[in-house]
Amino acid sequence: MKPSIKINEESKWIIEETYFNQEWLGKYESIMCQGNGYMGIRGTTEEPYLGETRNTFVAGTFNKFDENEVTELPNIPDLIQMTIKVNDKALDLSKGEVSQYKRSLNLKTGEIIREFHYHLEDDSELAFRFSRFVSMDQKHVISQKVEITSVKGNNRIGIDSGINGQLTNSGSQHFSEGAKHLFEGKYIQMTSETSQSNISMVETTVHEISNAANLSSRIEMRRRQVFNKYWFEVAQGETAVFEKFSNIHTTRDKEHEGKSVEDIEKHGLEELVAVLASGYDTLLTNSAKAWDKEVWSVAPITITSKDHEDQVAINFAKYHLHVMTPAHDNRMNIGAKGLSGEGYKGHTFWDTEIFMLPYFTYTHPEIAKSLLEFRYLGLEGAHKKASGNNYEGAQFPWEAAWIEDGETTPVWGAADIVTGKATKIWSGFIEQHITSDVVYGVNQYVEATGDKEFLETKGYEIILDTAKFWSSRLEWSEEDSNYQITDVIGPDEYKEHVDNNAFTNYTAKWNIQKAIHIYEELKENNVEKFNELNTKLDLDRVYADWLDRVDKIFIPAPNEDGIIPQDDTYLSKKIIDLVPYKEDEQVGTLFHEYNLEQVNDMQVTKQADVLLLIYLFENLFSKEIKLDNWNYYEPKTMHDSSLSLSTHSALAADLGELDLSYQLFKEAIHIDMGPHMTSSDEGIHAASLGGIWQMIVFGYGGVRVLDGQLRIEPHLPENWDNLVFSIFWHGTELKVTVTKEAFEVEVISGEKEVTFDHKGEQYSVTDKQVIKLI
Amino acid sequence: MKPSIKINEESKWIIEETYFNQEWLGKYESIMCQGNGYMGIRGTTEEPYLGETRNTFVAGTFNKFDENEVTELPNIPDLIQMTIKVNDKALDLSKGEVSQYKRSLNLKTGEIIREFHYHLEDDSELAFRFSRFVSMDQKHVISQKVEITSVKGNNRIGIDSGINGQLTNSGSQHFSEGAKHLFEGKYIQMTSETSQSNISMVETTVHEISNAANLSSRIEMRRRQVFNKYWFEVAQGETAVFEKFSNIHTTRDKEHEGKSVEDIEKHGLEELVAVLASGYDTLLTNSAKAWDKEVWSVAPITITSKDHEDQVAINFAKYHLHVMTPAHDNRMNIGAKGLSGEGYKGHTFWDTEIFMLPYFTYTHPEIAKSLLEFRYLGLEGAHKKASGNNYEGAQFPWEAAWIEDGETTPVWGAADIVTGKATKIWSGFIEQHITSDVVYGVNQYVEATGDKEFLETKGYEIILDTAKFWSSRLEWSEEDSNYQITDVIGPDEYKEHVDNNAFTNYTAKWNIQKAIHIYEELKENNVEKFNELNTKLDLDRVYADWLDRVDKIFIPAPNEDGIIPQDDTYLSKKIIDLVPYKEDEQVGTLFHEYNLEQVNDMQVTKQADVLLLIYLFENLFSKEIKLDNWNYYEPKTMHDSSLSLSTHSALAADLGELDLSYQLFKEAIHIDMGPHMTSSDEGIHAASLGGIWQMIVFGYGGVRVLDGQLRIEPHLPENWDNLVFSIFWHGTELKVTVTKEAFEVEVISGEKEVTFDHKGEQYSVTDKQVIKLI
Repeated sequence: MKPSIKINEESKWIIEETYFNQEWLGKYESIMCQGNGYMGIRGTTEEPYLGETRNTFVAGTFNKFDENEVTELPNIPDLIQMTIKVNDKALDLSKGEVSQYKRSLNLKTGEIIREFHYHLEDDSELAFRFSRFVSMDQKHVISQKVEITSVKGNNRIGIDSGINGQLTNSGSQHFSEGAKHLFEGKYIQMTSETSQSNISMVETTVHEISNAANLSSRIEMRRRQVFNKYWFEVAQGETAVFEKFSNIHTTRDKEHEGKSVEDIEKHGLEELVAVLASGYDTLLTNSAKAWDKEVWSVAPITITSKDHEDQVAINFAKYHLHVMTPAHDNRMNIGAKGLSGEGYKGHTFWDTEIFMLPYFTYTHPEIAKSLLEFRYLGLEGAHKKASGNNYEGAQFPWEAAWIEDGETTPVWGAADIVTGKATKIWSGFIEQHITSDVVYGVNQYVEATGDKEFLETKGYEIILDTAKFWSSRLEWSEEDSNYQITDVIGPDEYKEHVDNNAFTNYTAKWNIQKAIHIYEELKENNVEKFNELNTKLDLDRVYADWLDRVDKIFIPAPNEDGIIPQDDTYLSKKIIDLVPYKEDEQVGTLFHEYNLEQVNDMQVTKQADVLLLIYLFENLFSKEIKLDNWNYYEPKTMHDSSLSLSTHSALAADLGELDLSYQLFKEAIHIDMGPHMTSSDEGIHAASLGGIWQMIVFGYGGVRVLDGQLRIEPHLPENWDNLVFSIFWHGTELKVTVTKEAFEVEVISGEKEVTFDHKGEQYSVTDKQVIKLI
Repeated sequence: MKPSIKINEESKWIIEETYFNQEWLGKYESIMCQGNGYMGIRGTTEEPYLGETRNTFVAGTFNKFDENEVTELPNIPDLIQMTIKVNDKALDLSKGEVSQYKRSLNLKTGEIIREFHYHLEDDSELAFRFSRFVSMDQKHVISQKVEITSVKGNNRIGIDSGINGQLTNSGSQHFSEGAKHLFEGKYIQMTSETSQSNISMVETTVHEISNAANLSSRIEMRRRQVFNKYWFEVAQGETAVFEKFSNIHTTRDKEHEGKSVEDIEKHGLEELVAVLASGYDTLLTNSAKAWDKEVWSVAPITITSKDHEDQVAINFAKYHLHVMTPAHDNRMNIGAKGLSGEGYKGHTFWDTEIFMLPYFTYTHPEIAKSLLEFRYLGLEGAHKKASGNNYEGAQFPWEAAWIEDGETTPVWGAADIVTGKATKIWSGFIEQHITSDVVYGVNQYVEATGDKEFLETKGYEIILDTAKFWSSRLEWSEEDSNYQITDVIGPDEYKEHVDNNAFTNYTAKWNIQKAIHIYEELKENNVEKFNELNTKLDLDRVYADWLDRVDKIFIPAPNEDGIIPQDDTYLSKKIIDLVPYKEDEQVGTLFHEYNLEQVNDMQVTKQADVLLLIYLFENLFSKEIKLDNWNYYEPKTMHDSSLSLSTHSALAADLGELDLSYQLFKEAIHIDMGPHMTSSDEGIHAASLGGIWQMIVFGYGGVRVLDGQLRIEPHLPENWDNLVFSIFWHGTELKVTVTKEAFEVEVISGEKEVTFDHKGEQYSVTDKQVIKLI
């Protein structure tokens, strides 16, 4: 099959589909997902197809179907679908003869346009043009337009459109049947309540039809559905325009706190009356302006590459990062699939801090702060998890949903191929590095922004509280006279129940070291804060433990070949030839032949583990050690997680392996944008999108913070002539322009002097400075 | 659109589809529904299509989704679906080129066969033959077979098949995600529990593939789904055979009472191992034998008509009556759509006693008894309803589900076209004639069967208890010095909140009269039973009331034109021209222009009301009165209920209007079997099917019981030369052979002399007797 995702060569803002293939619905639904952080709607076609996944999610509206399931983002009643009949036959692109087909998502404005000519058996011909967007300006509003032109013949059109609440999350229904209302004969409203969390979703929609002859309509209320049915005629040469405006408000919205459902219903209706008065084009202009103001004008990235796709990739990544991120509410965070699919149930993982957060920290620090405040607000759940496991302090949940929920990882997963029984998902129990990952994100944010206010009100407490957890987590080994961390899963999830995973032990120790430093710093310089936190967290007692234990934590050291053992037993396991599986287009094919238990006994790594440690803490290791470990681990790494390739690409760039790095960059940007037409079915890969930014700014831009100090060491891949990017450093925007020969650092806003390191030398810049690379 | 339901001219047992039309999926799903009274499965195709409704129901397994909904039969996880790929493309009859297409249901064996040739773009050609049945012999078992022949080319086939629990009842999910198991690498089992009634459904399935080259397979467990994926090749000229055997057992099954879920799971697996060993053909033979023994050999009906369709119609009716009737369990009854669709939620209405029960009473009295025992067991719910409404005795629910549930009619229905608000469904509150309808069924059963044992243990009590309700229900009118029944809905549901509906008042009085008679009879002849019931029901007290009130009940009498007023105000309402609506193919189109309130103010009747009274109590009215009322009411009757046409047809036959009767007979049999291709989408019309039997045996056979006396007055329509039917009368089977000139009554089994009335004369028969008609 020839894959059909196309980069428009004339625009760095357009991704396109140039012919319709029903087998690939899921791909386009995910990569053309629209939203604004408040809501996300998959890029489904208006007319329904078998195999589609029609999802609309509102961030933070978690609900638990029953006691056997974990809480998840519910798929709310659909507003997008229209069943369209042409001369009494359903419009269906998989059947009719179709020409001039094109579907495109404009990343700059967020608008999807779908155009085609539809040829009927009787030689009639119609031109359809669908457009729609989710407003970035009015976060509750969705606008749709369908233009129908009779190119040949006079044609009769029927459209059923309204609100459909028969959808589920793969069979789990989160809503009671909604209450239905009709106002002024045209405003349809349905209010549905989640079954366990009791969140009410108020959805309102209205249609406007122009230039339609002999228009008639009728409302139909069915079970969980309200539709308006329209019939009209379009004479040859005429164009009828069918518009639909909708909005969504919920009782979870901060702006509606304290309001009754009736008040919210009234508000939704009033807003929609005004929206209808504005019309599609005005709404689109305002939304595009908001996109520009909030996203595109902020820290823009320009890549001059022989391959046009590279620039599209970063635009694509930024588009989706803003579609999926609930920047408006610090009680919410980013799901592993954003708001673009049911995969991972809308839950937040370490993906946020390690993969997506850096983008926000360096370009939208206020959003980064909000995402970290979510962790602060989540301390309650983290305490619950720690004490439930007989630990002290704050142990962050592997999967987080609503702030108070604590751990929400499901306990049972897919079937074991050998036994046929469902496998236990251990991550929620023993994938414990999430706790130091959160601290890594806090530390990076504070170092890059210098946000003392956040540090004092929230950051200190997170770091101290998590160190308390780690200290209680350590296990004393009489045999080895050291503290160990046994029975964990590290970043490499193909190794369950391992002892002393290098990544886990290193970061746990680092977390405690950070806490020791903060304790001493506060006690010395901020007695009031110290006393407050000392009382709250019993610091004096735990500080003594920290001091006693920190140097006795077992840290796997490089062996005689320079290899850092991934864990106590990894290096003694069987080595198999992975080439056939690595070359397979599908991810996870290893498991068609081995079960998890068997893979556990091989030197096979799912994703960067030791190499991630090296990437995140690069000044801990010599270049030689880095290379040795790269050469050892990369061939054993399946990259079966979308979190793996970008780390490897950036690390390869660090190591000067630019060709290899660029090859990995290409693989990484193809995770969603590439030719694997089913890999994004369950949603877009959020971490991978954050990874695209990291590969560019950290990998090729060479930006890093080492011990609180900004470092810039750019190195462009062969294909690139020029890279321009911006970062915010302590509130100052720095524009960095890189060529193969030199790079320029320019202070764009703010008047502070910025100091950075380049190849061991310190530079200070207040205006701009050019540094030669060769 | 040319409708495609076809009666096979060579067989009275086959209904056919001769070309595939995706718009008509629902029609065939309903009319080709398979089952055995234990379960019902819609006749969906194996491969899925947009617009399909994939339902499997197990009788009696009611569950309530949440507090806002009423209990309903849940759509259990599907076993039928197979996703089939041919050379990597989904098999889809709406797209590919298809020839020699035929789908047929064999009513005699219950087997669906679907055959076609499928032509690919590369000139490959495959012949597919799907067959399947639900066993009438082993009530828990479903068998499927797919034969795939490569006519041209060598072709690669992929089939995903297993258990799919993502289905819902139009969005309401009744099950927790099921527990999944795999045994011996091939037996797949999923056990799902209903959310409120806590019934566990154990579904097990296994595949067997033969003559498939390069066969490989893999199990896949997804959310609420377990599939086995198969890939194989079929060389030119070869036929691969793919079989699937499944069974369903539940904790509600009487045979599993007291067993643990684990025991039932074990039993299901063991049964399936034996089923697999038997193979499709043996299982089909056994099932067909059971159909013959239980249905076709019992009281057969033969129609010699110029129109072959008439014989198919009665076969079709009997087939479906046995598919839908849970004869195995007296805690269950027949749903208004049988087990063939979500319509009416599997609930039981008066349809059972007035429309379906007569068939069973006269041909399968043991099933009739079980259906009436359901009402006896439902007395608890009927007491609940009566006392909830401040009445005494037993008030049967308008909609009945599980025996203890009492009233289960939903309170809110579809939208009002004018106000846009949901309309209140009043039936559960005020459609009260259901209580005397049940008594009518009891009385007819006892009169026809002479089943004294049932009468003594259950029948007396039902009649006395319901009379107690009616007596308490009566309202004394000071103004008119009589007892009235105000604010009801009669059979004509287009008239809500009427006073003194003739049908209701007549039958209520009749019910009390029956009770008075029983009281006196028992007191005289069965003192022990009398004392028992007197104590239980406080008979002495209520008997005094009955005596006092029975003659003071207001009974609407014929006016000067001989018209019995349907209620107090009907005859004074506006008369409009109904012809355009009556001629519309679609039912209910009147409501596209008027709302219920407006229709309430017109002389428009939904279905037989006064005429039904005349039909059921024919010796209460003179032939003249009957004709006057026919001429008045029939033109005002929309026949918008499937309960209307058969009554009118039989009544017209009684009145000697044989041409009109036959025309109505044709309309009635076309309710499901006819050219209206969407009218059966929500399920088959159970009452209409019972009506087909009544039109033949009561209408043309002229069978009736009048005051306990059998009457036979046959009269054939023009098209019919001969009608042979059997009925059981007090345990004796009578075969009646009717021609236009004479009829013969023959005693087939039993040795009792049977007495019957014909045109006022008494006949006694022990062997056979011929009576001339002209």
